[in-house]
Parts: sequence; C-alpha cells; structure tokens
Amino acid sequence: MAEEKDIIERGGESFPLLPGVIGMCEANAYLRRGDKDELYLEMVDKVLPQPEGLVLEDIFGRRKVLKGRILELALVDHRIVLEEDPK
Amino acid sequence: MAEEKDIIERGGESFPLLPGVIGMCEANAYLRRGDKDELYLEMVDKVLPQPEGLVLEDIFGRRKVLKGRILELALVDHRIVLEEDPK
Repeated sequence: MAEEKDIIERGGESFPLLPGVIGMCEANAYLRRGDKDELYLEMVDKVLPQPEGLVLEDIFGRRKVLKGRILELALVDHRIVLEEDPK
Repeated sequence: MAEEKDIIERGGESFPLLPGVIGMCEANAYLRRGDKDELYLEMVDKVLPQPEGLVLEDIFGRRKVLKGRILELALVDHRIVLEEDPK
C-alpha cells in the first residue's frame, strides 16, 4: 500500500487518500438518450430500486430518484448507465 | 497521487497499483437468500441486464448469468446485492 497520505480531486472537491485505503469507488451515473449518454449524477455510492423508481445516492448523501432502469454497470470505468421510462 | 508502484491483493491475486491509478473499483456480488447474503461472484466489473438474465463479468472476463435482479448497489462498500427469481 502507498505509505504517504495523498489527496485526490473529484468533482471539484478534495478527498484524502489514506494509507490502506485503495480509493473512492463511486461511479458516475449517465442517462442514455438515443445514442448519447448524459451525466445524471456524479460520485454515486448507492443505487436502490424502489417502488417510486431508482433511488441514487451520491457519496455526500444527496439523492435523486429516476423512473427508469439500469442498462449497464461498468465499475472499472466508474460508469452506471440508466434509461428513463417512456412517459 | 502516490508516486511509488505498489501491489494490492484481491481474491488471492496481485495487481499493480500504478501511479495515477486510484485503484481497482470492482465490487463483489452477493445473492440475498432470506436474511443472508451469499457471495456469488468476486471482483465484478460489468453487469448487463439481458433477456437471458443478469450477465455479470468479473475483471478477468469470467461470466455468470443469473435469472434475477439487482436489489442494491453500494459501491463505496464494493457490494452488489442480487436476488434470484423464484423458480
């Protein structure tokens, strides 16, 4: 493991990278619209399918709820791809 | 970022932790059975809902297909919780 304390920057905020901590393993959530993926929520920690929709929570506890579904997870690329239900 | 090259161990295998690379951000997938979560696949990179089921792929490209659904993602905890469809 790295011995020194270090800082990583994500979304304009700084986080300490502590010895023994490999890193923040959140992902960014994108909404697929046609052939484009639009950023929906950054630094997502939790995703919970609930009756009211997909509840996404970022590492700061901020929540968004999407009526839709998960299309793809690609965790090494830090990507969650979502699709909104047709209205 | 850490300047030295380092090694992390996961699932009995070693990976280089390179300068500028924060770390492997895979997760372990668990199958919820009653009130227990059983390890289903380690070091999952990709999850793709497909007609034949949830296709899980680990960081080595090994695949498992589960007839079921995602119950919960908790990425900072490296956890994907799945539920198998009733038979």
